[in-house]
Amino acid sequence: MTFTLHHTSGKARTGTLQTPHGEIRTPAFMPVGTCATVKALTNDMVKETGADIILGNTYHLMLRPGAERVAKLGGLHAFMQWDKPILTDSGGFQVMSLSGLRKMSEKGVEFQSHIDGSKHMLSPERSMEIQHLLGSDITMIFDECTPFPATHDEARQSMELSLRWAERSQAAFTALKGNRIVIPAKAGIQSNNPATTEGLDPRLRGDNKEENVNAPYLLFGIMQGGMYEDLRKISADALTGIGFDGYAIGGLAVGEGQKEMFRMLDIAPDMLPADKPRYLMGVGKPDDIVGAVLRGVDMFDCVLPTRSGRNGQAFTWNGPVNIRNAKYAEDTTPLDAESHCPASGLYSKAYLHHLVKSQEILGSILLTWHNISFYQRLMQSLRDAITEDRLAEHATQFLARYHANKR
Amino acid sequence: MTFTLHHTSGKARTGTLQTPHGEIRTPAFMPVGTCATVKALTNDMVKETGADIILGNTYHLMLRPGAERVAKLGGLHAFMQWDKPILTDSGGFQVMSLSGLRKMSEKGVEFQSHIDGSKHMLSPERSMEIQHLLGSDITMIFDECTPFPATHDEARQSMELSLRWAERSQAAFTALKGNRIVIPAKAGIQSNNPATTEGLDPRLRGDNKEENVNAPYLLFGIMQGGMYEDLRKISADALTGIGFDGYAIGGLAVGEGQKEMFRMLDIAPDMLPADKPRYLMGVGKPDDIVGAVLRGVDMFDCVLPTRSGRNGQAFTWNGPVNIRNAKYAEDTTPLDAESHCPASGLYSKAYLHHLVKSQEILGSILLTWHNISFYQRLMQSLRDAITEDRLAEHATQFLARYHANKR
Repeated sequence: MTFTLHHTSGKARTGTLQTPHGEIRTPAFMPVGTCATVKALTNDMVKETGADIILGNTYHLMLRPGAERVAKLGGLHAFMQWDKPILTDSGGFQVMSLSGLRKMSEKGVEFQSHIDGSKHMLSPERSMEIQHLLGSDITMIFDECTPFPATHDEARQSMELSLRWAERSQAAFTALKGNRIVIPAKAGIQSNNPATTEGLDPRLRGDNKEENVNAPYLLFGIMQGGMYEDLRKISADALTGIGFDGYAIGGLAVGEGQKEMFRMLDIAPDMLPADKPRYLMGVGKPDDIVGAVLRGVDMFDCVLPTRSGRNGQAFTWNGPVNIRNAKYAEDTTPLDAESHCPASGLYSKAYLHHLVKSQEILGSILLTWHNISFYQRLMQSLRDAITEDRLAEHATQFLARYHANKR
Repeated sequence: MTFTLHHTSGKARTGTLQTPHGEIRTPAFMPVGTCATVKALTNDMVKETGADIILGNTYHLMLRPGAERVAKLGGLHAFMQWDKPILTDSGGFQVMSLSGLRKMSEKGVEFQSHIDGSKHMLSPERSMEIQHLLGSDITMIFDECTPFPATHDEARQSMELSLRWAERSQAAFTALKGNRIVIPAKAGIQSNNPATTEGLDPRLRGDNKEENVNAPYLLFGIMQGGMYEDLRKISADALTGIGFDGYAIGGLAVGEGQKEMFRMLDIAPDMLPADKPRYLMGVGKPDDIVGAVLRGVDMFDCVLPTRSGRNGQAFTWNGPVNIRNAKYAEDTTPLDAESHCPASGLYSKAYLHHLVKSQEILGSILLTWHNISFYQRLMQSLRDAITEDRLAEHATQFLARYHANKR
């Protein structure tokens, strides 16, 4: 089994997902590594937070440095020296939100790069090819993220297109399966330093620490259907019929608000197979995640902890902290004295305040590190609470403390 | 003895300088930590490079967060969690190069902050007070860095002013000596995490790992005199007469070029006491440092490795590398396969090229880390060569390889 459920508590579950580059403990939060780096952090910092997996963005990587180039350099793992699992999105969401002139058709999307205006095409087939070239452990099908708000008819048409693309995605993924990236000899890093082989893609190492051959590369479907229960059900049933290794819930966190999102999450996860991981894309704030885990979601990704870290916002058990606030200028307490992450426990708020006010890169480094660490500790606390059958109590206590300072 | 000479080879020397926060192996390169951070690096990264000491800038720190505030927070070591030695400059150089409207007098310099236009005063007395409040291990006297070019008369007048300020600096430093910063109770970081006491100012720790009480806080004089040998001699003799713990050679690396700088370094170090460390301020490029060590200089600081790191330039044994160059886009070799610094040995040039082209913070982190690591390895190679009486040969080989790719 690729996905093993360990324990359920209400709708919430703990589990383990096997991938070629290691296992992922669920519920899991995946830091976003858009351009082959989790912004402002080294790989060691990301690992120290306890993250089992990071996310890469197909849209950004296909434009720079290019999927073929990454493949030539040994795949994304070797390129960025990250030896744990990587999930890549399909590029569908970013192409709609970031690119220039777009032309959409049944075939796919033609668009212009936001970097240099060059013309590109994304389709189910090309998206699968790119994610294959990157060497992604978890590939996402190419879909259309239904905009919000959308009428029932708009949401239906969009969802049906995504279903046709889901089938094409699966066919393309399957066709590539027997054709895993052939790593060119001496790809990746060339070094006399023995330490440098540690971070290598297992396929590049000369030792016996091989890729987990028993864990296949995975393909996840993406449920759409906007805010309409009937459309969500049609999408879920059709995707389940095709059959995927996991299922994402797409088209949420697009501006509908937490209340509406939770209304959908009260019903959507139950429509998906219980024995496969469920992934809520692009979510979210700590309280969003807690609410979604309570409703049966297993995986999350979001730019919030990294982006906020670069903007002077820290997430803590007592709610978000805007470290620019003058009240922190002489505050000698750390962000989280209980944490073993140096960024959380070693430095005073006064120092972080100074770094952010002075626009020092170290301010972005430390706050991002702290935030990713906080998110991972939050996920660990949720996994523990599920295991010990006290999730409802834990969630209530977390939310009370998290919102206590809200004005 | 505060400074112990171990070995000399020609004019070059190896030694050890004792300070309250530990010892410095000379010849030493001091990474610049202008605003209480070596830009783009964590303290652990700086330490991993082998740096024994960093430099802080009085001008920047007095304006933000303010010297009195730093003292209130436990001093600069506790504030930035750096437990090794810190040298602070006097602010004299930056106030002339960075601040707004200035009014100079015998008393000192009135100026406006480049940050918010607020009015401030720097004088020998105030500079000593600020460096005292910061808790600097090595305080620099307040001087005027003679501009280049300067007539003999201009250089003489400037040098004589600096001598009067040197006397006032020493008097002020001595008056403060019996009045070391009183650390307020619970200053610095408050944390339950035992790991967090490791980086603390020894004066803040509850354990027995106390400040080295046998090593006093040090005051360095600064020789001036422009490009005029007779003025350099007058300055050196007068400073030696006052008596300092070390002597800087100021007023070089101000645009005179390497040839002219080396001409001064052929004579200036010999004018200073042989049993005290000699510090060449603001220098320099790797080949500048090699040439200065050959001429008897013991200490260096420069923004070059950090600033270049943020601009995509890497220093290597084969000369500087502009990692933005398209030829590195698919170069799978690391910057330095022999180095154990992850930034030097773990990542391919292709990856670093991608990060810099993508303006990713990790690009600044890794190139800065590599550059500081390279500078420290260069210093270690010089110390080894002096110890083993093969400095001239080592320098020749270094320079031949370093300049081999020059067009």
